[in-house]
Amino acid sequence: MLELGSAPVPQLRPHDVLIRVAYAGVNRPDCLQRAGAYPPPPGASPLLALEVAGEVVAVGSEAPREMIGARVAALTPGGGYAEYCAAPWQHCLPVPDDMGLAEAAALPETLFTVWHNLFERGLARDGETVLIHGGTSGIGTMAIMLGKAFGLEVIVTCGDEAKCEAARKIGADLAINYRETDFVEAVKAHTGGKGVNIVLDMVSGDYVPRNLKALAEDGRHVTIAVLGGMKAELNMAVIMSRRLTLTGSTLRPRSDAFKAALADEIAANAWPIFTSGELAPIMDRTFPLAEAAAAHARMEAGEHIGKIVLEVAGG
Amino acid sequence: MLELGSAPVPQLRPHDVLIRVAYAGVNRPDCLQRAGAYPPPPGASPLLALEVAGEVVAVGSEAPREMIGARVAALTPGGGYAEYCAAPWQHCLPVPDDMGLAEAAALPETLFTVWHNLFERGLARDGETVLIHGGTSGIGTMAIMLGKAFGLEVIVTCGDEAKCEAARKIGADLAINYRETDFVEAVKAHTGGKGVNIVLDMVSGDYVPRNLKALAEDGRHVTIAVLGGMKAELNMAVIMSRRLTLTGSTLRPRSDAFKAALADEIAANAWPIFTSGELAPIMDRTFPLAEAAAAHARMEAGEHIGKIVLEVAGG
Repeated sequence: MLELGSAPVPQLRPHDVLIRVAYAGVNRPDCLQRAGAYPPPPGASPLLALEVAGEVVAVGSEAPREMIGARVAALTPGGGYAEYCAAPWQHCLPVPDDMGLAEAAALPETLFTVWHNLFERGLARDGETVLIHGGTSGIGTMAIMLGKAFGLEVIVTCGDEAKCEAARKIGADLAINYRETDFVEAVKAHTGGKGVNIVLDMVSGDYVPRNLKALAEDGRHVTIAVLGGMKAELNMAVIMSRRLTLTGSTLRPRSDAFKAALADEIAANAWPIFTSGELAPIMDRTFPLAEAAAAHARMEAGEHIGKIVLEVAGG
Repeated sequence: MLELGSAPVPQLRPHDVLIRVAYAGVNRPDCLQRAGAYPPPPGASPLLALEVAGEVVAVGSEAPREMIGARVAALTPGGGYAEYCAAPWQHCLPVPDDMGLAEAAALPETLFTVWHNLFERGLARDGETVLIHGGTSGIGTMAIMLGKAFGLEVIVTCGDEAKCEAARKIGADLAINYRETDFVEAVKAHTGGKGVNIVLDMVSGDYVPRNLKALAEDGRHVTIAVLGGMKAELNMAVIMSRRLTLTGSTLRPRSDAFKAALADEIAANAWPIFTSGELAPIMDRTFPLAEAAAAHARMEAGEHIGKIVLEVAGG
């Protein structure tokens, strides 16, 4: 259950800024946390939300005072489904005047997640091919956009033809309706039998052996969620003889220092693509904060294409 | 069955040298190939042996003529259980006069394999801890020596106390008798609960989930053989949340160019440790070529500590 309530304005740590929240992005971990399956890390707000955008209204003793009044998008450790949210100042990205705060709130979690897992962990390089499951999810749409912006061939899977069409419009080179087509065969056909260099996987479970079949030699398999189950039976001889790499990560429990370094990397390399208007996040729907439960229901039903955001103060 | 026979002296490709074989190293893939389970790659000699040492007696049209008469150790694509063996000149390492050819023949396969998988693929860094199964095998003894030479903490498993003692003498910081002690618990106890940074695994099968338990956060699992079975059931959520990496490789099918680059890397960084006498390969026993079957039987019985070599011309 999600209900509106009152809570004190968060205390700031020395490196925090206090953000008057205009919009908060909704992410699947929010649903898990609501259901009790994803407890917040130690020290984090018990409130939901991993990303917000809004105006900085106060700063901690070690945060730059000149940030007061700035419009920012922030990766948050929690606490964004609220009027005021604290976040380390190093986890904030500047939002120019001509960029909407709803769009800004829709970016941090998927941008940080995809950037780290696709490029830093998956080592995606210009000219390589990536397979992404859930092509119209928040992660999927971000991965299509970033992949295309950085010279990748992007293949996605989706659950129906309308979503495949949406994924193609966003830029996917191939969108596979996984209910009708075996994605391994479709990937092989599209890549001349070679397979993809990277799989960015949020399904896991029995998708993993199929993903490995879809990988080219020296391919990388990066797990960012396990929506289809945790257990996977793998053939280690295949990993060895085809020199595959399996890895993965979650963002939320990483250290503040890690997130700050990642924010620097993104500010230099990816954020300008969005602030310049070259790319914009794919927006699904905006719900008022009071209707957060309906926003979660929409996400859990898989009806969304792109990002769902909650309007708090708006702007 | 292994029988002595006659075969023509190998034809040289332009980049090959012809080596009059003094000794050939025996490796587990030789046993698999003998049993029909490991066919030689396309174009390779049908004869066994992945490594030899001896004297260069002829060179191909593109190989340096000044190599004639040189004593070399070579990684070979096969064909080393013979009087004459061809290998690309770039896969040869120079053997100084004061280094025995039996010792030289015992080095290439394990040195190339451990170097690539421990340092290049496993990204082992000074101060990290590595777990190696089969601590007294050819691979295991090489991994202990290289690990210690490059500042790693080395933990091995062995099947009895005599082998554990041998592994400790070679330099292992901890040798675990896996028949008596749960290696996961022993690793945790030795590392203050953190686990190891790298597992160099040749067992696979049901060892894999145990290896993952023995890994620290951000740990790397490198598969170089699957002696205990290919299938492993893994928890992908653990790989994701602890940011583990699983990979592996086999050396023999790699391109000549890859092996040449690896040989360059080894010649610069590891070979001098052996040619200077600072380290010497752990030698188990030497068999005459005619007794290759007995050498294989010894390896398959797991009785050996270190490398088994076959004497061909000797020297």
